[in-house]
Amino acid sequence: MKIALAQINYHIGNFEHNTSKIIHAIDEARQAGAELVVFAELAVSGYPPRDFLEFDDFIERCLNAVDEIATHCKGIAAIVGCPTRRADIKGKDLHNSAIFLADGKVQAMAHKSLLPNYDIFDEYRYFEPYREFEVIAYGGKRIALTICEDIWDVGEDPLYTIKPMDELIKQSPDVMINIAASPFHYEQARTRKEIILTNVRKYKLPLFYVNHVGAQTELLFDGGSLAASPEGFIYDELEYFAEDLKIFDLDDVATAKKMPEQNPLGIIEDKTKLIHDAIVMGIKNYFGKLGFDKAILGLSGGIDSAVTMVLAARALGREHVRAMLLPSAFSSEHSVNDAVALAENLGSPYDLISIEDAFDTLDASLQPVFGDLPFDIAEENIQARIRGLLLMAMSNKFGHILLNTSNKSEAAVGYSTLYGDMNGGLSVLGDVYKTEVFKLARYINKDEEIIPENTITKPPSAELRPDQKDSDSLPEYDILDEILYQYIEKRKGPKELVKMGFEKATVDRILKLVNTSEYKRYQTPPMLRVSSKAFGMGRRMPIVAKYLS
Amino acid sequence: MKIALAQINYHIGNFEHNTSKIIHAIDEARQAGAELVVFAELAVSGYPPRDFLEFDDFIERCLNAVDEIATHCKGIAAIVGCPTRRADIKGKDLHNSAIFLADGKVQAMAHKSLLPNYDIFDEYRYFEPYREFEVIAYGGKRIALTICEDIWDVGEDPLYTIKPMDELIKQSPDVMINIAASPFHYEQARTRKEIILTNVRKYKLPLFYVNHVGAQTELLFDGGSLAASPEGFIYDELEYFAEDLKIFDLDDVATAKKMPEQNPLGIIEDKTKLIHDAIVMGIKNYFGKLGFDKAILGLSGGIDSAVTMVLAARALGREHVRAMLLPSAFSSEHSVNDAVALAENLGSPYDLISIEDAFDTLDASLQPVFGDLPFDIAEENIQARIRGLLLMAMSNKFGHILLNTSNKSEAAVGYSTLYGDMNGGLSVLGDVYKTEVFKLARYINKDEEIIPENTITKPPSAELRPDQKDSDSLPEYDILDEILYQYIEKRKGPKELVKMGFEKATVDRILKLVNTSEYKRYQTPPMLRVSSKAFGMGRRMPIVAKYLS
Repeated sequence: MKIALAQINYHIGNFEHNTSKIIHAIDEARQAGAELVVFAELAVSGYPPRDFLEFDDFIERCLNAVDEIATHCKGIAAIVGCPTRRADIKGKDLHNSAIFLADGKVQAMAHKSLLPNYDIFDEYRYFEPYREFEVIAYGGKRIALTICEDIWDVGEDPLYTIKPMDELIKQSPDVMINIAASPFHYEQARTRKEIILTNVRKYKLPLFYVNHVGAQTELLFDGGSLAASPEGFIYDELEYFAEDLKIFDLDDVATAKKMPEQNPLGIIEDKTKLIHDAIVMGIKNYFGKLGFDKAILGLSGGIDSAVTMVLAARALGREHVRAMLLPSAFSSEHSVNDAVALAENLGSPYDLISIEDAFDTLDASLQPVFGDLPFDIAEENIQARIRGLLLMAMSNKFGHILLNTSNKSEAAVGYSTLYGDMNGGLSVLGDVYKTEVFKLARYINKDEEIIPENTITKPPSAELRPDQKDSDSLPEYDILDEILYQYIEKRKGPKELVKMGFEKATVDRILKLVNTSEYKRYQTPPMLRVSSKAFGMGRRMPIVAKYLS
Repeated sequence: MKIALAQINYHIGNFEHNTSKIIHAIDEARQAGAELVVFAELAVSGYPPRDFLEFDDFIERCLNAVDEIATHCKGIAAIVGCPTRRADIKGKDLHNSAIFLADGKVQAMAHKSLLPNYDIFDEYRYFEPYREFEVIAYGGKRIALTICEDIWDVGEDPLYTIKPMDELIKQSPDVMINIAASPFHYEQARTRKEIILTNVRKYKLPLFYVNHVGAQTELLFDGGSLAASPEGFIYDELEYFAEDLKIFDLDDVATAKKMPEQNPLGIIEDKTKLIHDAIVMGIKNYFGKLGFDKAILGLSGGIDSAVTMVLAARALGREHVRAMLLPSAFSSEHSVNDAVALAENLGSPYDLISIEDAFDTLDASLQPVFGDLPFDIAEENIQARIRGLLLMAMSNKFGHILLNTSNKSEAAVGYSTLYGDMNGGLSVLGDVYKTEVFKLARYINKDEEIIPENTITKPPSAELRPDQKDSDSLPEYDILDEILYQYIEKRKGPKELVKMGFEKATVDRILKLVNTSEYKRYQTPPMLRVSSKAFGMGRRMPIVAKYLS
């Protein structure tokens, strides 16, 4: 049997777009001789549809889309992900389903059993887990059809109490097909392949796996759909960060022999390149799916805005990214020079507006109330907020989306100004620690100096008061980032961190900064997610609390 | 047996505070002759602890708190809510537990079976549902101990597939005890009592119910712990919006006869008064638990900021609420007069700073880029953002928390300026539709004119351009609010709304405004939740999507 895997960039709730993409792929697969074409989890709606699933109208449109797709399934079968309504009154009203279409209609369905409800996942919010299992017979083959998480619970500390494949294997299937929505982070492709190989080895069956590709706001899907052979290796993969369709002969995949020198996981990519490619796709899709094509950002001469600008230029085209240079009295000369050099290296438009007049006027307006009180955080933030205001004025006047340039280290410790440099429709680097931002800059410059060397080598500074440096109030970034990583990604507590060798006073201070900055992060733009634990929907913390704070 | 119900305002993660409150209540109950004292769900940690539950360190502190509390349980038993670790490796690592303490140690535990995972609830994110049931024998009585949602699944469309009380009743209990964390909305107390009465009638047992009181960021807990009698009425309740401890004789509650004229639900409160009291508590606790005592807000002369200011003055004291009057060239004379009149009626401090100079300077700064382009949304927003900047400068300089004054109707349709009037640490009216804001103003003025009559009667306007009125671009608020309510609270789709009699063009326009404003609401401050569907953690929508938009 020839099986096509269709890896598509869906648009949440855009049924016209999704349906037409699916139908086009069905036609393409049929013409190429495929007997079955497989689409991703919740393909018709896009993933994650979130609370749209609570609207009957939305479910109706999903089911209508499947009806329309079914009429195109003649001479070829298709598996399509779609939410479906349950007949049983007990439990939640919906299933997360894989619908098997052939001869112009629905032939069978499988429903998801293991519903991820951690990090960015909320599936138990909407769906009832399925507890019955039946292989689907088609074209002389018996298909064990599962949905994403259903094959993931293979570790030593299982998150669920049942294993769908342990049930399905009793019915002697010939092949496993898994439709997925597995969002990217920089270690996810490796983990995903390990999970898949664990399955093919355990059940001694070939496995065809179809993932989403493309960005849905902050969630990035890297694609990498694949076929895996029972001997325990990746037979072949689809593209990463791009749409793709590929056809496999089931028997070839089932009987393929592993070469002695073959790396079972395939190529392991470089972390910095992965983050780079994922972010570029994230920016591109954020703009494209919202119907915008122009970005604006504040270019300070520092490394964060420089890296953000290059990534945006790669996503949108250099002429579509406009830089605003907004110096104050505390800006050093190199700030403007470095910013100009970058904009000119890229060939992107830029404008320079001094914020000194605005600062003086606002300062004077506040004088009757502030009197002779000394310059402090209030005046520092006024500068950041004037910049935020000017950038939003440009965005409103010309239809740019403002890109936020804060990095994850800053976002973690609250080292940024609400309604100032925290402004933006999308945070490009909000899930990238400062130490990784440096690596991105080096990666960007690997062939030529795009980002001025001085931007990379000078000590980081917010330049909101004379001679300010980040290191005045924070530990060095390599220490800071490692503590943050252990606390945020690895959920290590203060005792564990001290045991790892970090100084107690530093640990306590950093954890307190993180926990008392929740109120700021609550109002942060969505941050493109590249790690296993990004701020935003996947990390839910109380604001008014007193824990490590 | 004498049973004490202890209704306490916990502070999330503040183990010292929570433990000491619990121990104090144990001592008080013992001295008053109680044999058992009951605390709320997850009392030791506060509710909801959210992702703090993912930290081993946090769970350790919870368990240590229980150990400390246990040592005080001599001569009295206690039931305390706490997360506990599971022995079984399969499934999630935690239970949401009720721990029965007596003779200085843990005697028994019950774990939550039905885990709410909708709206603001995420319990399946952390906890494994329990599937075994055992009554607890104590003092000659058999106690059916359940946790919140465990007794809620009594409707005609059950959300779960099992019913804990159907299992426990087989073991012939004498009494039901339910420990809860049931957040307020204006219909919740009524629903809660109906659920409780359904239980006492069905199982023919008395029920003792303990809820949280106090605010946890946006979530408000109204208390209203109670004892219900098997004949199907509320025997007695504890205070609303205040801490309380009350002792009941189990036999009295079990054998009480309903008076013929008795309203089984007790008094049904007035919706506007409920919202008023809940918001006042919400503001008070937000400040108190964060360790702040001073609020600032922009007072425009309009009704939203006026109502916000009165509520803040009632929560914090009039002298702790500072009003900023920030008129522009487009502000009408009555705006300033009405604002001054309110501040003077309240006796609160206020300052007036014109934003005209700042506007002119910023306008001039942008002139080289804007050229001769006409005044539009960019300039409108500059005004709102100057105000936001000045308010934050005051907040930074003097340590006020800025209160956001936007209402739910505006937040729904995006009729507000990001980084301008959307600024604030807490949104006071973000879950209150404009029509209800008017009712709050009337309620506030019921005994004397606190809010100037002109503020209530004049047509609402943002005053960002000459002669602007809300009704220029929006339907009248009674129509708008009803469409919003049906779409947001009731999840009605466009077809259903048209069937209800609303004009199709209006419905389509409003729904599109709501769905395309998600990007703004993503960056909104937390909004005190008073309805069954507030923006924020309980309503999770994609930003980049194309559905009804």
